[in-house]
This record gives sequence, structure tokens and C-alpha cells, in this order.
Amino acid sequence: MSGNTIGTLFCVTNFGESHGPAIGCVIDGCPPGMALSEADVQHDLDRRRPGTSKFVTQRNEADAVEILSGVYEGRTTGTPIALLIRNTDQRSKDYGNLTETFRPGHADYTYWRKYGIRDPRGGGRSSARLTAPTVAAGAVAKKWLREKYGTTFHACMTQLGELPIGFESWDHVPNNPFFAPVADVSALEDYMNALRKRGDSCGARLRVVATGVPAGLGEPIYDKLDADIAHAMMGLNAVKGVEIGAGFASVADYGSTHGDALTPEGFVGNKAGGVLGGISTGQDIEVSVAIKPTSSILIPRPTIDANGAPTEVITKGRHDPCVGIRAAPILEALLALVVMDHALRHRAQCGDVQHRVPPIPAAAPRG
Amino acid sequence: MSGNTIGTLFCVTNFGESHGPAIGCVIDGCPPGMALSEADVQHDLDRRRPGTSKFVTQRNEADAVEILSGVYEGRTTGTPIALLIRNTDQRSKDYGNLTETFRPGHADYTYWRKYGIRDPRGGGRSSARLTAPTVAAGAVAKKWLREKYGTTFHACMTQLGELPIGFESWDHVPNNPFFAPVADVSALEDYMNALRKRGDSCGARLRVVATGVPAGLGEPIYDKLDADIAHAMMGLNAVKGVEIGAGFASVADYGSTHGDALTPEGFVGNKAGGVLGGISTGQDIEVSVAIKPTSSILIPRPTIDANGAPTEVITKGRHDPCVGIRAAPILEALLALVVMDHALRHRAQCGDVQHRVPPIPAAAPRG
Amino acid sequence: MSGNTIGTLFCVTNFGESHGPAIGCVIDGCPPGMALSEADVQHDLDRRRPGTSKFVTQRNEADAVEILSGVYEGRTTGTPIALLIRNTDQRSKDYGNLTETFRPGHADYTYWRKYGIRDPRGGGRSSARLTAPTVAAGAVAKKWLREKYGTTFHACMTQLGELPIGFESWDHVPNNPFFAPVADVSALEDYMNALRKRGDSCGARLRVVATGVPAGLGEPIYDKLDADIAHAMMGLNAVKGVEIGAGFASVADYGSTHGDALTPEGFVGNKAGGVLGGISTGQDIEVSVAIKPTSSILIPRPTIDANGAPTEVITKGRHDPCVGIRAAPILEALLALVVMDHALRHRAQCGDVQHRVPPIPAAAPRG
Amino acid sequence: MSGNTIGTLFCVTNFGESHGPAIGCVIDGCPPGMALSEADVQHDLDRRRPGTSKFVTQRNEADAVEILSGVYEGRTTGTPIALLIRNTDQRSKDYGNLTETFRPGHADYTYWRKYGIRDPRGGGRSSARLTAPTVAAGAVAKKWLREKYGTTFHACMTQLGELPIGFESWDHVPNNPFFAPVADVSALEDYMNALRKRGDSCGARLRVVATGVPAGLGEPIYDKLDADIAHAMMGLNAVKGVEIGAGFASVADYGSTHGDALTPEGFVGNKAGGVLGGISTGQDIEVSVAIKPTSSILIPRPTIDANGAPTEVITKGRHDPCVGIRAAPILEALLALVVMDHALRHRAQCGDVQHRVPPIPAAAPRG
Repeated sequence: MSGNTIGTLFCVTNFGESHGPAIGCVIDGCPPGMALSEADVQHDLDRRRPGTSKFVTQRNEADAVEILSGVYEGRTTGTPIALLIRNTDQRSKDYGNLTETFRPGHADYTYWRKYGIRDPRGGGRSSARLTAPTVAAGAVAKKWLREKYGTTFHACMTQLGELPIGFESWDHVPNNPFFAPVADVSALEDYMNALRKRGDSCGARLRVVATGVPAGLGEPIYDKLDADIAHAMMGLNAVKGVEIGAGFASVADYGSTHGDALTPEGFVGNKAGGVLGGISTGQDIEVSVAIKPTSSILIPRPTIDANGAPTEVITKGRHDPCVGIRAAPILEALLALVVMDHALRHRAQCGDVQHRVPPIPAAAPRG
Repeated sequence: MSGNTIGTLFCVTNFGESHGPAIGCVIDGCPPGMALSEADVQHDLDRRRPGTSKFVTQRNEADAVEILSGVYEGRTTGTPIALLIRNTDQRSKDYGNLTETFRPGHADYTYWRKYGIRDPRGGGRSSARLTAPTVAAGAVAKKWLREKYGTTFHACMTQLGELPIGFESWDHVPNNPFFAPVADVSALEDYMNALRKRGDSCGARLRVVATGVPAGLGEPIYDKLDADIAHAMMGLNAVKGVEIGAGFASVADYGSTHGDALTPEGFVGNKAGGVLGGISTGQDIEVSVAIKPTSSILIPRPTIDANGAPTEVITKGRHDPCVGIRAAPILEALLALVVMDHALRHRAQCGDVQHRVPPIPAAAPRG
Repeated sequence: MSGNTIGTLFCVTNFGESHGPAIGCVIDGCPPGMALSEADVQHDLDRRRPGTSKFVTQRNEADAVEILSGVYEGRTTGTPIALLIRNTDQRSKDYGNLTETFRPGHADYTYWRKYGIRDPRGGGRSSARLTAPTVAAGAVAKKWLREKYGTTFHACMTQLGELPIGFESWDHVPNNPFFAPVADVSALEDYMNALRKRGDSCGARLRVVATGVPAGLGEPIYDKLDADIAHAMMGLNAVKGVEIGAGFASVADYGSTHGDALTPEGFVGNKAGGVLGGISTGQDIEVSVAIKPTSSILIPRPTIDANGAPTEVITKGRHDPCVGIRAAPILEALLALVVMDHALRHRAQCGDVQHRVPPIPAAAPRG
Repeated sequence: MSGNTIGTLFCVTNFGESHGPAIGCVIDGCPPGMALSEADVQHDLDRRRPGTSKFVTQRNEADAVEILSGVYEGRTTGTPIALLIRNTDQRSKDYGNLTETFRPGHADYTYWRKYGIRDPRGGGRSSARLTAPTVAAGAVAKKWLREKYGTTFHACMTQLGELPIGFESWDHVPNNPFFAPVADVSALEDYMNALRKRGDSCGARLRVVATGVPAGLGEPIYDKLDADIAHAMMGLNAVKGVEIGAGFASVADYGSTHGDALTPEGFVGNKAGGVLGGISTGQDIEVSVAIKPTSSILIPRPTIDANGAPTEVITKGRHDPCVGIRAAPILEALLALVVMDHALRHRAQCGDVQHRVPPIPAAAPRG
């Protein structure tokens, strides 16, 4: 019932604080015999890494991962895989002034109310830094799913603050610091430069897609595939909304136009987002998330201290003016962890997937 | 790892099919000593019950609940509470024509792909009827939370298809078949009548609020309070989107205006929706969900049969033209189940809530 | 984390009290497509049923099981299977005198200390009657394992009170009320008659064996196959000891003679009891359990009441002079539930069993 | 459902292989605010440490533990506590000859059958070395239980091979390498010396006792306190039998003499071993375990290789001639982990223990 574990069969237990000795996770349930090395995990960690552009925190962390267990002669053994990332760039003094005040929009107040004690250094447990182990575990899940089913995961930014971002091609995503699927990001750069000049922060909207997910993954009630996806996404720092497929646009739609028709060539459209009745259809899993503005800003905010007395707080230190900018690899990892878990759950109850009937060809992935 | 169980300490295991002998659930983990009778559970079941207006399915189910265990001389004993609801109005012939075709937007295809077998009668396991046990279990959670912390739950419809619904007062909600917080629902009635004449269906948007939730409920990572809320909500039939607090409106907001400031009198505003860092603040928990149009409509839709051959399907039988209309009590129940579970989780690790520090008065509940 | 659930993938949630309206269970995770009817479950229930001989309680319960869900047209659908058994022969007055006193050896005192309330009727939740749902669920697991792997389960009594019972043949077990593997049970009958004349009770030792368990089932640490077997067995009413294979005889053994040698023809002997390092070898799983004497006897015992004042108690009502006599079908069911759960766990992580290497022929099952 | 996790609320996830880079565990669910340092954990690790006498393996491991998370300024924060132990003395060449053969009594064969791959270095995951993280986690549980309830844990050896060991006093246990509760251990030394001269190994019997366990801990069915204790104990390497209280001696006992009578001064005797109906009575928890002889011996044993061809194997390397000798601290840790978990489970459902009724004074702990 560990609150810091995600997954039921592909279990990832996350540990660590932003400025403690180390962060990491233990993956239990990984199938044996898969080739795995630090390099396989490091790639996605580097995509999430801070300090890669002037639009993200300048904290300089190598985020070098060490595999402590579960791999023998380059292959997974089926035993727990422990992944360790040492914290190297800790400037706790940056946060000294925060031990007695609660930053608006932060977890300071709630941790204090829950535990009666909190590690204030760099946000402690509630720091976005704790997404690194999630990304590392997701890389393991991605690799297995790709090799087993050819499943792939892609995420991109679809809106930065007030700026909607069109979709041109996935190919552009790795070529700009915003994970934007467009060739020209100058408008986004101007927007962020103005924002930073003001010492303010903004929100973002991202989209994450899984292609090649076998049909039949998910549970009938409660642990539906989309329910677990929503759990994973909403569990990410700063996420305030989650949509599957057509999402909130479904409200003003009609039954005669919403349900994706089936044809011998596959589904017509994907308003369902690849999930019907909580179970995957074989189409793309389509998810969209809303990320709130970073709470750590240089503009003074009214707050109170631990005694309830009014005061003001400015969050110094090195923060992302938009945490959404580095979120794409994390969303891919979270979606991969959920799909992986349900792939194993399906195998437990029903045996290997797609063994029973010829799949209906899925409609072409939406741009 | 039961896929049909929700909760980790207040565990509700749901069973049954729409046209099988019975539906129900087993609640394990309920605290002992609470007065509980069938009447306590029946009230919410009646609020969800079909056949109560011309705008919902005319299926006539008493949904009479029987407590099979866990209660002795009118008090919970701490042992599992089994709740049984017999299915009485089964017209399986209505569905005979659906055994060989997949209804667009339905779980027919995915169940068939997952299990290789499905109970087609009334949608079998994927029928909205299976929300009744959830409502029954939620009634137990609501009662304990109300008696222990004074927590209350309210849900209402905020949009019906293309019609936004303003908020006048919670008092109106019980007085109209739409659970709308407004006095005059004639526009909603006209909208639904036109819709039914066309044999079509529409979506809806609902809002659910928990007031009086103790501060400090939730886990740091993965099993955050809002993550579990999203899991519960997205796990409800037809839900395609979930928002906490400001939700998707957060994307275009700024850090300087988004984070709810703290004052000695409490928080200023509640864009966080009552959750910071995955842990409750003591403010109202504010959730909004998007419900897609009912897939079961009288308008013919193109589809395929089990052999992949093209065909057409019309869904006869008795269906809700908008499943959102009866969703309010279900959303309250789901939110109550999540809050209940985290209340017990908090008590396990940290002892009884609000024992440590004087709470900051929460801002007045939003209308 | 439901305390009344056994299994992680083949999850059985047990509910009910001895003299409440009904008892039963919900099985979640059963593979789809298996033929299943009430008759498949009733057979083992009848083997456990009271009133079948003068050596067991004369309570007369039909223990007729009803399948409420999870089966369509005679086949499992993969959705939860709810099994219901109505209580018919309730004589609560028999127990009226026990509401204020704690019977030595009973759960009266501990339930009262844990919950502050208890259902005293027939022992309430702690009655051996609650093993019926376990037996019912075990029958489902047995059927799947037999059809999938040819696994079979047998249990017999090996000692009754002070009387050791030799092993002649499994064939004798169904032919006497003691589940004894011998042709002549007159000595056992005399022993029990003398015991009943004294109004006393005795203990028993039983052995349960699983044949045809695939190799490779179990987890490396903590959730070892034998650990989960011990959990299941010790969780049965009145069990005070569990052995795997050579059990306590291992203490005085030596490494040079204990470890079962391997030969091309298979293992030589089975002191391991079919489990090495927590994982099945493919040999018979051999388990032995100690059952304490029934605590409900007609001989007065000193005790205290709820106020702590000294008193005496005699347990009237209809009780088994040796609960071990009806335990054999329960032990088979428990062992089947554990093997089933690990079979599904193995399939989740490693795919279907015995797919990788030619099995070493297991040594012939011990008598 | 992580197979390498023990506990449901005080969750310990164990990772590592005997000769990998490191071993350790993550504890999730520890209550916040408890003083905790490496020294608190190191003490029990040192009691289990190899190389402390000529009767245990000469492998020289400092077993120095590092706390990676969950502790801030010397106090637990309520977030996961990761404990790391680096492996320093690895002589993998000692085991080179074992990659192709299956040692009788070892997990070699079963791991190979389960995973199709195994880490043979030092027994890999199945090495007794992996009990170190369990001991470390147990030390945390012991500390909390001692400070909260005054609960203490003691284990000792009661039989070494064929030599029964009487009980004189707990005070002797720390003063001899056998954890024997007697002043003179010369007979044990002679026995072990003769054994080692033969290159053989022997079994052992140990007893572990918890004193000051609150009444009311445990679940009614399946997850009984004694069931979870049996799970924990049988999950320990080489354990083949577990007894609670009178254990197997209960078989030949009678109801009139077995049930522990209650008096205003407390229970008379403790044949129940501190558990009735799966729930603690407040008396000492009494557990006894059987440990088989070490399988790693210098005497040649017949076996087969991965191709099924007959061969012989001698286990060189540094092994314990009796693994029971170092088992006492491990048994204490396992019992503490189970009691801790149920203490938190009780608190979740019923609130803090012993809050409801004046406890009946428990009988004096048995010597």
C-alpha cells in the first residue's frame, strides 16, 4: 500500500529528497532476460535534465544513474532493479529562508500539516527533481514494450502559457528546448524571455501519445487503463487536469458523432483516445495534461509563517519559469509505466496479448 | 491487485453484471462502531436510481440494498460489509442483436479483445448500472466522514451538452432531475426533449466538491490525493476528462496570480482545488469532470461484426440520453471513497488528523 | 490492503458472520473462458459440510452456493465471481450467554479488544463456518489448475489427538469421516466416542499435497511460495504450526543427507517439500499442519467477563469435538489458492510456465 | 504486488544480489518525527554480520549502512527511507564452477526454471546476505515500537542440530556466538568443531518472542497476525517450519487443558502464543522456527548440469556451517516488521491501540 509506489505488477518505488544524499527507485516485476544497461536509462534522464537551456533551471545535475541490482551480464534477471542517482549540486542555503514560511502554491504548508516536519531543502520530497527516478523507470518499461510489442511513446508541448502551439511534426520535438512539434519556436522564446524578465512563470499544456499499444489492456471497473493513466498524470507535480481522447470537448458533442465508427479498415477517428470501457482498443492512446505555472517566482507573494503571522516570500534559487518545458519525457515515462503494468496484468489473467483474434487495423495515428 | 477494487484501506470490491442475478460490493476496512442501516445506503441509491424522470432510462429497478455482513445490532463491527442488490428488471432480449456486433463508443469490442468472451446483456460488466455498488459504498464513507470530521459532499451539473449552467445555489440541485444548481431548468428540458426526438444523446460537465476535508490527506508521490481522485473519476463510465481546482485554465495563468496566497484568515482563493503537492489543504476539494455522450442511441451507426464484416447497429433498449444526468451522486460517492481511504492512510502513518497544529481557517467555500 | 482478502492476482475477498444473513466471497482475477457451474463448487463444499457424521457439529447447513456474477452461459468471463451462501440454521439463543464472557481459547477477548464490539452469534466472524467461502474459491482455483497444468490436491489426517495415523492409500480418504488414509478407522471412532463422552475436544495433524505444480512458481524474497503457503495455512482457524517438506525434522538433519540430490531421472527424495529458495521445483508440494483442540467444550472453564470479574463458561451449542476432522478440504483449497496466485504471478512476469526448458522429471509422488 | 516487498503499511522493498554492487531496501510508511540515525540500524546489522566467530562464514563484510532519504536533521520525515549497503568483499571466482551445475538444496535449479537466467555469484538473490536489509528495516520498526508501546523482541537458539538447548536466561544470549540462552556453550562448540572437520552442516531451532505487543493487532481472516508471522518466518532462507505458542504439541492436547484460562490477574499460561483468532492478546508473541542444514558443504553431492547430465558438486567458498547461528537477529527483525505493520493497520481502522478498555494484565512472560 506504499504511497510512493506506482504499479501493481511492474512496481516502481520512488525514494529521495531534492537535496538529500541521493534519489532513486526500485523496480520490482521486470521480466527477465531483457538487455539493459545504464545507457538505456541515461538517455531519457538527459532529456529531462536541468541546465540544458536558458529556459529551465540552471541547477547543474549530471543525473548519472547507477544500476545497483537486478541485472547480470547485461540482462535483467527478474529480480528488483534498484536505480540510484546521487545528488551533486546542492545549495541548501538558497532555501534557508523558506523553513519558516509557506510558499503559496507549494507543498510547504500541506507537508507541515501532514507530517509535522518537512525537509525544506529544495522542496525536499515535493521537488520536481523526484521525477527523475520516474523517468528512469519509464525508460525500462519503454524498452520492454518496444521490444515486445513495438509500442512507442511521444510527448510534446501544445500550449505555452497563452500561446497555442500547432502540430507540424514529431520530428521537430527534439530540435528545440520546448519539446514543441514546430520548426519555428522564436515566438515561444520571446514569450519566455519576457516572462523571465518579469520574474514570473507560466503554465503549459502537453500531449502524450502511445502508439502500438496492444488491444485488451485495462480492467473493467476502477483500475481502467484510462483511470490509471489519469492517476499517473495527475500525480505529476503541477498537473491540474487530464484528458483522454476528445476530453472536455466531449461535453458539447453528440452520440451520433462522438463514438468512433468501426470499419473493416479500422476505427474512423479516435475521439475515445484509444480506450473504450477502460480497455485499450489498439489505437493510439491520446492524453492531454494541464500544467500550472511554477509556484517558485521572484515576485513577492503574501503568505504566513509557521506561527500564522502574515509575511511575504520571494523564492530565490534556480527554478524553471515553466515546469511544463521539461515535462515531456516525464509524461512519456508515466504513460509507459501504466501501459507496462497493464500489459503484465493482462498476461497474468488472459495470457499473452493479441493471441486470440486478428486485430482490427488501427486508424492512422493522428498528427 | 484486484482490478475491481478501489481503495487501499477502505477497500471496495465491486461485482456483478447488468443483467446477471445481482450486483454489489464488499467493503473491507470500515471502522467499527458506526451506526449503519440499509436506509443509510438506500438514500443515495435512490438519488442515482433509473426511471425517476423522463430524461433517464425507463428501466425500472428498485435497487433495494441488503446488508449481508459486517453490521451487528445496527453498528459496524469492523469486519467486511457485503452489500447486495438483486437485478429485477432484466430484458435481455433487448440486447440479443448486439452479441455479434460492436457498438461504436462501447466496450463491446475491447472486452471481446481482452477476454475473448463477454456478457452482452445490458452491457454486462461495462453497464453504468455497476455504479450502484459504488454509490452504496460511498454512502458508508460519507457517513463516517460526516460524523468524524463534518465532511460533506456535493455535486451538480455545470453544462448539459452545449448549454452551460450557471451556479445559483446548492439548494436547487435536489429540486430538478438534472442535479442543476439553478431554479429554472426549462431550457435544459427543452434541450433534452429535442435531443430525444432525434434519438441522439449528449455529453455533460459536472462539478463535485468536498467541504470539511482535514488538511494533511494524501501521499507525496504517485498516490497523491488528487491523483487518486483523478483515478476514481476517470474510472467512471463515459468520463473523458478530470480537473482539480483551476484545471485547464491554469495553462494560461501566471505564477504571480495562480498560487493561492495565505493569510492569517486562510487561503485567498482556491485555484489549487484544495490540494497542494498532492496533500489536502483543508479547503474545499474542487473537481470537475467531462462526460461523453451516451453511446447507446437510436441513430444507426456503421460498425463491424465479430468476423470483421461491415454492418450497422442501432441500440434499442432503455438508455439515458445523457448519462451525466444521474452522475452527480456517483461523483460524490467516488470522491468520498478517495477521501475516506486517505483519511485512514493518514491515521495509520501519522495518527489522527489535525492533532498537531491549529488549522488555518479555510477560505469560505466557493458558491 | 484488505485484511480479508487472500491472493494478489487471484484475489479472494471473504465476507460474512456465522449467524448473519449470508457468507460468501468475491473472486477477482479468474482467467476467462473456463467452464464453471455451481456444481463445480458445491462438491468441495459438501466435503466440508457440517452434520455429515456424529463426529462433527450437528448444525445442519445445506451450504448451497449461488454464483452471482462472472459467469456467462456457463463460462467465466474474467470479471469478478461472487459466490453467495445463505445461512439457514441459526440458533443464536445457543450463544446468548456468551455475549458477556470470554471463552478461553476463543477470539472473543481479542475481537473485543480490537473492535470494541463483536458479533457473538456462533462466534461471528471467527467461526470455522467462514472457511466455506475459502473452500468455494479454492474449488475454482483447483479446476483451473487441473485443466491447465494437471495439478491435483489431496489432504488427509495423519494424527488424531494422541493417535498417529499411518498412510495406506489416498483411496481410503473419502471412505471415512476422518479423511484418514487408512482402511480401518475403528480406533479413531473409539477415541472420538470417549472424547465426546467427556465433553472434551482434541487436536489433529493433517497433511496436504499438491501434485503436478509447475516448476518456477514463487518470488525470491518475502513472497516465497512456501511463505505464502505458511500464511494461508496459519491463517486457518486453530492452526498453530506449519511445516514444508521435512519441516522440524530438518533441525537434527545434516547438509550431507538433507539436500535432495538431482539425477537425470529427477530429484532423489523430497525433503524440500517441492520448494527451493521459495520457488517450486516441480515436485510435490508437501505441507503439514498442527490443529489445536476445539475451544468450545462442555467442560466448565474459568474466565472473566467484560468487567474483568471472574466467572465460569461452558460452551453449549453444536461444535466439532475436533475441528481437524473437517479441515482436509479447506487445506486443499488454501494450497490451491496459493498455487493459483503464483501461477498467475509467474505468467505476468515470465510468461507461461515450462516454456523455457525441458523439465527434469519429478520423483514419484510420495505415498 | 511487489514480490520483494513485505508489509502493507510499513512496506519494506528489498533489493540486491550477494555479489552485485550493493544491497538495501526502501521503507515506506514509517511514521514521521522519530529520531533515527545510521547507528540505530547498524547495531542489529552488526549482530547479524558474518566473520564474527569461527562458527560462521569468514566472508568479511562491514555491512555499513547509509541512510539515503526520509530523514532530516536526525528525524524521520514520513517519506521513504532508503537504506544502502555496499558489497565490499566479493570473490566471484569462488563460485565460477557453479554456473553450470545445480547445488542440491539450493535455489539454483528453481531460479533457472523460473527466470531462465540467474546471477550465480554467491547465490545471487537467494543468498542469506539478503537478510541484511531485512534486519536494517526491522531495526527501524523495533525502535518505533519500543518508543511507542514499549515492545521488545528477543530471539535465541533452542536446538543446534541434535543438541537441545535449555533456557537459562536471555542475558546469556549476547555472550556467546550461538545466541544460546545458556552460560556454558562448550558442548555446542565441540559439536560445531566436529561438524566443520567433516565439512558438513547442521540445522537449528530458534525461538523468537515479542513482549509488550498491544492487544488487538491482526485481521479476522487470512491476514491474521499469526498468519503474517508465519509468512515472514517461512520466507526466511532455510526455514522449513513455524510454530505459534504450543505449536505441534497442540495436536496431542485437549480442549480442557489447552485454552489459556482468563483470570482478573491475566491469562493462565500462553499456549496460544499471544494470538487468539488471529489477533494479539497482549501476552508475549511466541514463535518457534525450524532451520534446515546449510546446503553449501564441502562434501561432494550428486547433481546434474544445465543439460541434465549427471555430475558432482562441492560448494567451496565461505559458508555458515549452520545458518541458524546468525538467524536470531533476523527473526527479531521479521517479527518486528509484522507487528509494526499490524500496529499501523490497527491504527488506520480502529485508531490508536489500547484506547478503549483497560487491558487485562498479561501473564508474566515465559522464561
